[in-house]
Amino acid sequence: MRVDDRAYDELRPLIITRHFTRYAPGSVLIETGNTKVICTASVEESVPPHIKNTGEGWITAEYSLLPSSTPVRAPRESTRGKVGGRTHEIQRLIGRSLRSIVDLSLLKERTIWIDCDVIQADGGTRTAAITGSYVALMDAIQWLRNKDMIKENPVLNSIAAVSAGIVNGVVLLDLCYAEDAAAQVDMNIVMTGDGKFIELQGTGEEYTFDDEQLTEMLKVAKKGIREIIEIQKKALGIV
Amino acid sequence: MRVDDRAYDELRPLIITRHFTRYAPGSVLIETGNTKVICTASVEESVPPHIKNTGEGWITAEYSLLPSSTPVRAPRESTRGKVGGRTHEIQRLIGRSLRSIVDLSLLKERTIWIDCDVIQADGGTRTAAITGSYVALMDAIQWLRNKDMIKENPVLNSIAAVSAGIVNGVVLLDLCYAEDAAAQVDMNIVMTGDGKFIELQGTGEEYTFDDEQLTEMLKVAKKGIREIIEIQKKALGIV
Amino acid sequence: MRVDDRAYDELRPLIITRHFTRYAPGSVLIETGNTKVICTASVEESVPPHIKNTGEGWITAEYSLLPSSTPVRAPRESTRGKVGGRTHEIQRLIGRSLRSIVDLSLLKERTIWIDCDVIQADGGTRTAAITGSYVALMDAIQWLRNKDMIKENPVLNSIAAVSAGIVNGVVLLDLCYAEDAAAQVDMNIVMTGDGKFIELQGTGEEYTFDDEQLTEMLKVAKKGIREIIEIQKKALGIV
Amino acid sequence: MRVDDRAYDELRPLIITRHFTRYAPGSVLIETGNTKVICTASVEESVPPHIKNTGEGWITAEYSLLPSSTPVRAPRESTRGKVGGRTHEIQRLIGRSLRSIVDLSLLKERTIWIDCDVIQADGGTRTAAITGSYVALMDAIQWLRNKDMIKENPVLNSIAAVSAGIVNGVVLLDLCYAEDAAAQVDMNIVMTGDGKFIELQGTGEEYTFDDEQLTEMLKVAKKGIREIIEIQKKALGIV
Amino acid sequence: MRVDDRAYDELRPLIITRHFTRYAPGSVLIETGNTKVICTASVEESVPPHIKNTGEGWITAEYSLLPSSTPVRAPRESTRGKVGGRTHEIQRLIGRSLRSIVDLSLLKERTIWIDCDVIQADGGTRTAAITGSYVALMDAIQWLRNKDMIKENPVLNSIAAVSAGIVNGVVLLDLCYAEDAAAQVDMNIVMTGDGKFIELQGTGEEYTFDDEQLTEMLKVAKKGIREIIEIQKKALGIV
Amino acid sequence: MRVDDRAYDELRPLIITRHFTRYAPGSVLIETGNTKVICTASVEESVPPHIKNTGEGWITAEYSLLPSSTPVRAPRESTRGKVGGRTHEIQRLIGRSLRSIVDLSLLKERTIWIDCDVIQADGGTRTAAITGSYVALMDAIQWLRNKDMIKENPVLNSIAAVSAGIVNGVVLLDLCYAEDAAAQVDMNIVMTGDGKFIELQGTGEEYTFDDEQLTEMLKVAKKGIREIIEIQKKALGIV
Repeated sequence: MRVDDRAYDELRPLIITRHFTRYAPGSVLIETGNTKVICTASVEESVPPHIKNTGEGWITAEYSLLPSSTPVRAPRESTRGKVGGRTHEIQRLIGRSLRSIVDLSLLKERTIWIDCDVIQADGGTRTAAITGSYVALMDAIQWLRNKDMIKENPVLNSIAAVSAGIVNGVVLLDLCYAEDAAAQVDMNIVMTGDGKFIELQGTGEEYTFDDEQLTEMLKVAKKGIREIIEIQKKALGIV
Repeated sequence: MRVDDRAYDELRPLIITRHFTRYAPGSVLIETGNTKVICTASVEESVPPHIKNTGEGWITAEYSLLPSSTPVRAPRESTRGKVGGRTHEIQRLIGRSLRSIVDLSLLKERTIWIDCDVIQADGGTRTAAITGSYVALMDAIQWLRNKDMIKENPVLNSIAAVSAGIVNGVVLLDLCYAEDAAAQVDMNIVMTGDGKFIELQGTGEEYTFDDEQLTEMLKVAKKGIREIIEIQKKALGIV
Repeated sequence: MRVDDRAYDELRPLIITRHFTRYAPGSVLIETGNTKVICTASVEESVPPHIKNTGEGWITAEYSLLPSSTPVRAPRESTRGKVGGRTHEIQRLIGRSLRSIVDLSLLKERTIWIDCDVIQADGGTRTAAITGSYVALMDAIQWLRNKDMIKENPVLNSIAAVSAGIVNGVVLLDLCYAEDAAAQVDMNIVMTGDGKFIELQGTGEEYTFDDEQLTEMLKVAKKGIREIIEIQKKALGIV
Repeated sequence: MRVDDRAYDELRPLIITRHFTRYAPGSVLIETGNTKVICTASVEESVPPHIKNTGEGWITAEYSLLPSSTPVRAPRESTRGKVGGRTHEIQRLIGRSLRSIVDLSLLKERTIWIDCDVIQADGGTRTAAITGSYVALMDAIQWLRNKDMIKENPVLNSIAAVSAGIVNGVVLLDLCYAEDAAAQVDMNIVMTGDGKFIELQGTGEEYTFDDEQLTEMLKVAKKGIREIIEIQKKALGIV
Repeated sequence: MRVDDRAYDELRPLIITRHFTRYAPGSVLIETGNTKVICTASVEESVPPHIKNTGEGWITAEYSLLPSSTPVRAPRESTRGKVGGRTHEIQRLIGRSLRSIVDLSLLKERTIWIDCDVIQADGGTRTAAITGSYVALMDAIQWLRNKDMIKENPVLNSIAAVSAGIVNGVVLLDLCYAEDAAAQVDMNIVMTGDGKFIELQGTGEEYTFDDEQLTEMLKVAKKGIREIIEIQKKALGIV
Repeated sequence: MRVDDRAYDELRPLIITRHFTRYAPGSVLIETGNTKVICTASVEESVPPHIKNTGEGWITAEYSLLPSSTPVRAPRESTRGKVGGRTHEIQRLIGRSLRSIVDLSLLKERTIWIDCDVIQADGGTRTAAITGSYVALMDAIQWLRNKDMIKENPVLNSIAAVSAGIVNGVVLLDLCYAEDAAAQVDMNIVMTGDGKFIELQGTGEEYTFDDEQLTEMLKVAKKGIREIIEIQKKALGIV
């Protein structure tokens, strides 16, 4: 039995609130169980040096835990003077995932900054960040189109992410922190709305897994992704 | 006439929501007009080196703007690798203000971390942070007392803060960002519930002010502080 | 009775030595009691990014304690790799104060760097830095005028600063370190030569103050400022 | 046809040289095609704070590119003053992988530092680093056993890593840099000697992949891993 | 008798391997006894700010110890976040030495980066780095000439370096680590192929030295330099 | 003829002022021509980790240029966030030189911090720093003996430093900045009061030098050192 009485392949309650703050063109609060992340999409009219003068745009992501988001206060990375390895890994994943569904040449020479700030962390913050950022990105794109700053929709697909894992030998969907801490295998899956993989990251934690277990984790993850995509659609008013 | 039709000595609507997040013993969302700050109070069972072995406790504050909190995205200080001068100034002010109303010896050798994370910035974030942090601090103290970790109430007084300023030669209370940007004089006042000053910081922005203007700014500030103290009391259920 | 037998509203001996070093256009040693600060004004023919192409100039300040300036050696901020909060606060105050008396548009696109290096610290270093920097600034401006680099005098007013405070319930002017360490209230006041406020920063150190005490501190501060302005004038040969 | 005439499921020539340098207990040069990585294992008689007094040991990895290892010189991270996101990601992967096959409690309170320094980079540096580090680790463990510093063999399994990917729609094993740069999907697989997964990281580069493609990539990867494990065994003299 | 049975004025075996790695135009492995350094010369088509628009080129050097190069693992400077004093000193010496034998105006506005990465350290790494970098530089210059990027040979002289010292009162040439650690005087000498000094750095380690000892150290150093120059010539195929 | 009409082997006027500031046990202003350096010696009752529990003491030095000490303002290293290579090199030289004349075991487990802050720079700052620091060190040692904190005099010898160089083919003693900038060879010599070498650092600046020139530079340097030692003695009241 799971901590919160869910079935092994059941998502936590997922709530997506758009227009959570007022200044960024896209601003979403995503809540999945006790995990809460503010995902915003801001537009900057310039691009990083490595793509300057290519005519293409860029999407980049930053991720941060508020110090009070975790049961034990997490020291601020600004105070420590450097961004840690885990944060680097997560923000690279978010940025890469969102870029994979956008035609950057249609964005023109501008950058969309995705900021994912976790205000409450109960496992699954990186997948929640991807799921929520997609909605924020859609709002920012609509804002750009309303202002006639871009002509065509550069978003080629929808995207959502979820975790799966193995706890006590049992495959589970959407791990909360207590499950994640006890997991033998932890896997994060990012998929498109039409059921293709974008990212697959599975890690045995002092444990290994075989083909059969991989297949089962992918199965529950796909079920979860399908449900999340529906909730994103409702939040965006696409039915 | 003010941007939002307020009288010159009128506060913006002030809403204090306790228990905003679930892990920190004190967690408050304070909203004053469009300014929104999450203020939390966390407890750590150790103290900084300079007061180790004195038997006293410590209260320290950190302040940060979420990148998307401002109309133009503010780069993250963790990414820049250092905390800027303005942030240093503000978090020192918050910490100093809260320490001035607490008997640190009653806290014993522990630190209360105050984290003020601005999720929407429309002027007055530092004063809102102080006002909200007081409520978060009260909840953290109650949590410590409930757990019998401290015997006596170390909080000696209530505290609130507000800004006043001069715009186009007119004294105004509680400046929003548009007013603040145009202000000739900007003053932040921190006071106790019984009407004494804790901090007074007035700055002429390429402008000077005289005794009469000072007196008038202090007058509206005191009125504002009195009203804020009432709202804090209601939020805390003290009537 | 004060440590050094001064009356409660008496300044420490104040000596201003111009042309203390030979390379900066303005170079002043200011001594106020045992506090000694080298204040220099250097000219750079460019401006920071945020005012580039505005046609305006800029004044910025940096402040540092020599490690041996204090009774206990103060670690060097260059070695620690970052500038501390107190230093940030002080150098922002100095820069802001000086900018408030200068018409930056008359400076044209150049920066005046104010460097305040404390070689002996016995309280009141930040106010001494402002008082001395004004004289160094005047010399740098004269140097620019002698070289015909600016036509009109951009300095609109004189400026001086002093501290006041409350020690054992008594209001005192110009606190030395021993008094400052024991102060219940510490206030720094920056004023123009014609008696207007530029900055007012009052802090209760685990103590509060009321209107009457504020009024009395301002009274002694104004007396001090008037005397300092006279000493600046003599140093500059303006009688 | 591949750049170097290999079959789609063919490894690059793989050479493992033990005792490459003389001071670290384990020191391996691994060459896979033009990719060359020095992997060393050093022993330190202490552990990081988070496991102090648990009686357990630790394995941690650092990874670095020599500036001249790439066709265009890569600036040194020590000079830039910080370790980049890609480096963080890779060294976390190496450390996690090696820890997963070691019983850390048998190591006792000591740390094994794995250093992977790439002297020539032609794709697949992170998988070569894992494959080579396993051999260096085995030598360091033998060194510890020879000195009677540990009694039992803490290494529970062998480990090897390889990349697979999709280029122009075709699944390929062990991508060189030119293939990697053109890849639609890039996957890194870490497996044990008995054919279980430890890590699986697949990324669509502005591309997605489906179940069938995943299955095919895993198939060639397993073939590659089996061959690498044999080469490791020969290098270690285990037949 | 010396640790390795050498005569007091005898060099350690010196082996220079060109084309050690394939991407940098100059890439040398220099081995002197157990000291092994990879020296590469890379070309960048730009120059540092301080010589921009002078028409001249630049040569700069970076030096690093691989963590496993020393008997006790040396923490990585990238991880520590800053380059230490010893490294600064060495890389400044290497760069200055090489610049002194090159007509920088003939290089045109480009930079040659010299990277010296020590993979095994047994004393004399800085002098080996200079000796090896000269060969790498020659290869990079030839590469530039082959590509017609420079017309004339900008290298005016050959250069080599060696250490001498005093151990137990005896002058020795080319100290290994054990000798260096016990040395009373440690001297590094950089000379041209025609026997002139470029750098001379002698240090008494809690010891002093007189004219006679200086003369004797210079004598053995000159003998060593002459032999090294011959080995460089053979490596470069100049007979 | 030299810039300031000195003979080729003539020192600049050298003035040593003791007790320049009041808090450090040793505090010296050394002026050599237009070069002015504050050298202080402070005592800390602890030692750095690498000699903890050896019963020995330590002497370490820090060196800094005030921003206004040079004709063109030098950016502050604290603001840049790191100490540059030149500074590292100089402070290592100062510390090493002073340690070589002190029996550190007699200091017991304490550190003497030497701080050299250049307030005016006209060449020869590092040698002036060593010469002045010796006097500050002597005062700090006397202070320790007066307080009975050390029994025996740990200073074994006197020490002084001077520069020599070659300008337009002519050997000169004690170069000012204009000469230093034009020098073909620049040499810094540190010697004991009884005429032995401690450090010898000669550098050809795009130039080389031969034995004869070396001999001549050492000759004028020894003359200079003898004169400086006399001035130090007078300053210290040793006749």
